[in-house]
Amino acid sequence: MKSNKSLQTILPSKYPIIQAPMFGVTTPEMVAAANNANCLGSLALGDLNADKCIEEIRKTKELTHQSFIANIFVHQLPEVNNELIEHYNTTKLYIQQLAKEHHLDVKIPNFEEIKLNSYHEQIDAIIAENCKIVSFTFGNLDDYSIQKLKANDTILIGTCTSLEEAQILEKSGIDILNIQGWEAGGHRGSFKDHDIPEIGGLALLNAIREHVKNPLIYSGGITNARIISAVKKMGADGFQIGSLLLNSEESALQEFEKNKLSSIKEDDIVLTKSFSGRYARGIKNTFIEKVEQSNYILPYPYQNKLTNELRKVAKLNKNSEFTSNWIGQSIPELSTGSTTTILNNLIKKIETFD
Amino acid sequence: MKSNKSLQTILPSKYPIIQAPMFGVTTPEMVAAANNANCLGSLALGDLNADKCIEEIRKTKELTHQSFIANIFVHQLPEVNNELIEHYNTTKLYIQQLAKEHHLDVKIPNFEEIKLNSYHEQIDAIIAENCKIVSFTFGNLDDYSIQKLKANDTILIGTCTSLEEAQILEKSGIDILNIQGWEAGGHRGSFKDHDIPEIGGLALLNAIREHVKNPLIYSGGITNARIISAVKKMGADGFQIGSLLLNSEESALQEFEKNKLSSIKEDDIVLTKSFSGRYARGIKNTFIEKVEQSNYILPYPYQNKLTNELRKVAKLNKNSEFTSNWIGQSIPELSTGSTTTILNNLIKKIETFD
Repeated sequence: MKSNKSLQTILPSKYPIIQAPMFGVTTPEMVAAANNANCLGSLALGDLNADKCIEEIRKTKELTHQSFIANIFVHQLPEVNNELIEHYNTTKLYIQQLAKEHHLDVKIPNFEEIKLNSYHEQIDAIIAENCKIVSFTFGNLDDYSIQKLKANDTILIGTCTSLEEAQILEKSGIDILNIQGWEAGGHRGSFKDHDIPEIGGLALLNAIREHVKNPLIYSGGITNARIISAVKKMGADGFQIGSLLLNSEESALQEFEKNKLSSIKEDDIVLTKSFSGRYARGIKNTFIEKVEQSNYILPYPYQNKLTNELRKVAKLNKNSEFTSNWIGQSIPELSTGSTTTILNNLIKKIETFD
Repeated sequence: MKSNKSLQTILPSKYPIIQAPMFGVTTPEMVAAANNANCLGSLALGDLNADKCIEEIRKTKELTHQSFIANIFVHQLPEVNNELIEHYNTTKLYIQQLAKEHHLDVKIPNFEEIKLNSYHEQIDAIIAENCKIVSFTFGNLDDYSIQKLKANDTILIGTCTSLEEAQILEKSGIDILNIQGWEAGGHRGSFKDHDIPEIGGLALLNAIREHVKNPLIYSGGITNARIISAVKKMGADGFQIGSLLLNSEESALQEFEKNKLSSIKEDDIVLTKSFSGRYARGIKNTFIEKVEQSNYILPYPYQNKLTNELRKVAKLNKNSEFTSNWIGQSIPELSTGSTTTILNNLIKKIETFD
């Protein structure tokens, strides 16, 4: 097992800021723009197949010559049995009816049409494309993948939401830990998809800093220099920025989605399994309310695959009541302009806090 | 309306540390011992009647000549109707059966035997005893009480778990806000008792610091100097310490309860309504598991009154499976010795962090 790589070896700035991988929001342009602010961009590959991963990586490489993180989902698949298929079919009927009631014309795939991709093919693609930093969420890589990536000199960043998860990552030789506080937007990176840890950032970072030696990135609620300064005092080595970039020029969000951000209040932000079968934090809307009440929620990734078309159609119809609008508990001041400008402004402010 | 009092006017130390009021744990001795470390002690009066409040205040005054905080519960009572009484009776049967199965001989009061105390009589007692600092939780004081206390030159500290609650306190002239992060142990101080805010300390403190001018005390997960240092960077003016004092000499916890603290892990700590009808954070045990499954949970304060005898009997039997064992998400290193020593050691460590 090689020794852990430090953050300093991969971060070009004296302020080790990482642009968060936000699947559906992050673009190759955002990654490049983050790199241009001397931050470390993350390309969100989610559960894309190998071909799509290669396409996204190549697009990004055309836009930046610096290293960036390739981020993938590493999840355990639920067992396929008749019960799951039946649950899928009834959920499909429910969602289709819901869409119809709200004038959204959606064709949800049948169970047998669903194609799940393995993260192993993503790793092969990442290695083939010579990406040297990989971050992951929803669990740990298997030993085989860890060895394969390390043999290729890849720096590994694992996501954790509890001390127990942090220690699993540490023991298996993951280089850097990304600590996801309760405050974070989007999907909880917990290893399990039910009874997940609910530990606030301060307590979580404290426990992990006390017990784990790895370099630590903190993510969850960082929207300004004040919070970075506090998290640095807590012993974090790097700071991951997500929600602050939702409104940036390079964000894949459309205008109607960006506009929605400008009027939200703290109690609009909820944790829900309704879109994907895994807990994620975002803005409550009709879809979340209806599905939470209905209890038609499949395990991840089936719920995600099932609701995918609905979200696409809703986006085309500029209907934010049926799109997922992920955001963290710190509501950012809406920053306009490019990701580079937003991050540069943040770095300027950190200097006055330090 | 008088202008807000600053924390500096009431805190004797350059490190503005407040000993948290922990009803059932805090003793007059703990309050005095906190004062002896140049911190500000809080006497937990909960929903005690006026006579009992006076008794506790007098005991404390005999032990310290410095000011201390008198802390009270300020809650809205649910409407009494037949449905509530019926719910009480079925819950009573369930809890009595549960106790019996676990060899605990408990006599639960009938609904009509329950005596609820108004916080108004507590305020009269506090004023009569000339206590000049009052903190409160579970809502805001009514205007009449605020005026009465202010006319008596009392400094008011309100508890909040959201920006909305903070702004309500600010507008009504409360002097100092106690911000309770999601990480905190014991009862959530939220104004509502359902659909409560779940905002992590970093996000909550950030939002309130941005929008509210009052001096701010932060509570929730502070167990060491590192966290104090971070929370200070976030703009908190005072730091409330709870869980770190559970094991102190002056804690009302018995040895079997203190021993339980030494072996807990992060996933032993849960949020539950089972003991009181209001959400509180503590160590999971048989009682919590059974009652959460059963759904026999009355609104606060009826569940609290109903389970009171059971907790007393369990305590006499040294059975921690049926006592409430509140603690926050930051599991403290178990500090032995007096509250004075624990707080003095903490202050020494803060100096190396600042």
